Amino acid sequence: MRIAIDMDEVIADPISKFLELYNRDFGVPLDLVLDPGKEVHQHVPADVNRKWYDYINEKGFFRNLPVIPGSIEAIQKLQEQHDVYIATAAMEFRNSLEDKFDWLQDHFPFIPWTNIIFCGNKVLDVDVLIDDRIKNFADFKGRPLLFSSPHNLLITDYERVDTWDQVLEKLL
Amino acid sequence: MRIAIDMDEVIADPISKFLELYNRDFGVPLDLVLDPGKEVHQHVPADVNRKWYDYINEKGFFRNLPVIPGSIEAIQKLQEQHDVYIATAAMEFRNSLEDKFDWLQDHFPFIPWTNIIFCGNKVLDVDVLIDDRIKNFADFKGRPLLFSSPHNLLITDYERVDTWDQVLEKLL
Repeated sequence: MRIAIDMDEVIADPISKFLELYNRDFGVPLDLVLDPGKEVHQHVPADVNRKWYDYINEKGFFRNLPVIPGSIEAIQKLQEQHDVYIATAAMEFRNSLEDKFDWLQDHFPFIPWTNIIFCGNKVLDVDVLIDDRIKNFADFKGRPLLFSSPHNLLITDYERVDTWDQVLEKLL
Repeated sequence: MRIAIDMDEVIADPISKFLELYNRDFGVPLDLVLDPGKEVHQHVPADVNRKWYDYINEKGFFRNLPVIPGSIEAIQKLQEQHDVYIATAAMEFRNSLEDKFDWLQDHFPFIPWTNIIFCGNKVLDVDVLIDDRIKNFADFKGRPLLFSSPHNLLITDYERVDTWDQVLEKLL
């Protein structure tokens, strides 16, 4: 079976990086808990709301993101039975390309280059797509698994996974 | 209809760049005509054969490749009727990522970031794939169009297009 896995908020954690930068520049608390259904930039003062777009376009933003807990071990297990791809919408941010590539080499060196996809729309011929953004499921013919992240917690239309252990329960 | 289009030897011309570098370093003639069925590195002395791998891994290699004649105008016409994607196996060469992205912005700025795919294996859910490498057709469920390049001229198993005019005749 072919499984495609998104990066941000699924195996990489940009939210803690955003909080770090909003904390540094505007005193937003580091331990802020995001409201269900909301993005991180919806928790900051209106006049600095658009700042997230500058942050994410800077070289280095994606280079040192924390790894989502359990994702490394889980993907290694999935690889024993399935053909695993990483599929991320990197094309929106030109400066993310090398950072995302290098980050994957650091944390997921066991995923070969043949199985890495930087794209925009996810027009993929795969059986399962694990993603936190439902826009990527709109046109998808396989089985979508919605990986929980604060912004998607109010969505009820999709099969959901909260943790990487739950992914393994469903796919092994 | 969704159409995916490869970059190298389909819209971008790395062969002339290889010849330029082999000419500069080893005196290989710039007007060398490649034999049908052969790669450019099979036309150079055996002791420098592997040099192509160094060239292609250098930053800048993909940045200033010539555009394959007719491709810009043809893709603009295809876009009027179809959903056109660019899909290139950039992941094999980490240093090609930004160069390929910037090259596309220069020559094909009318292709939105949503429709650019840097991958390895082309596991794409598209109707047509225009490519010069038949390995990309092996597992492809749509209609493959083999874009002629010296190395593939002896292959007879696929529907072939020699020029961008021929692509338009088939897809418009």
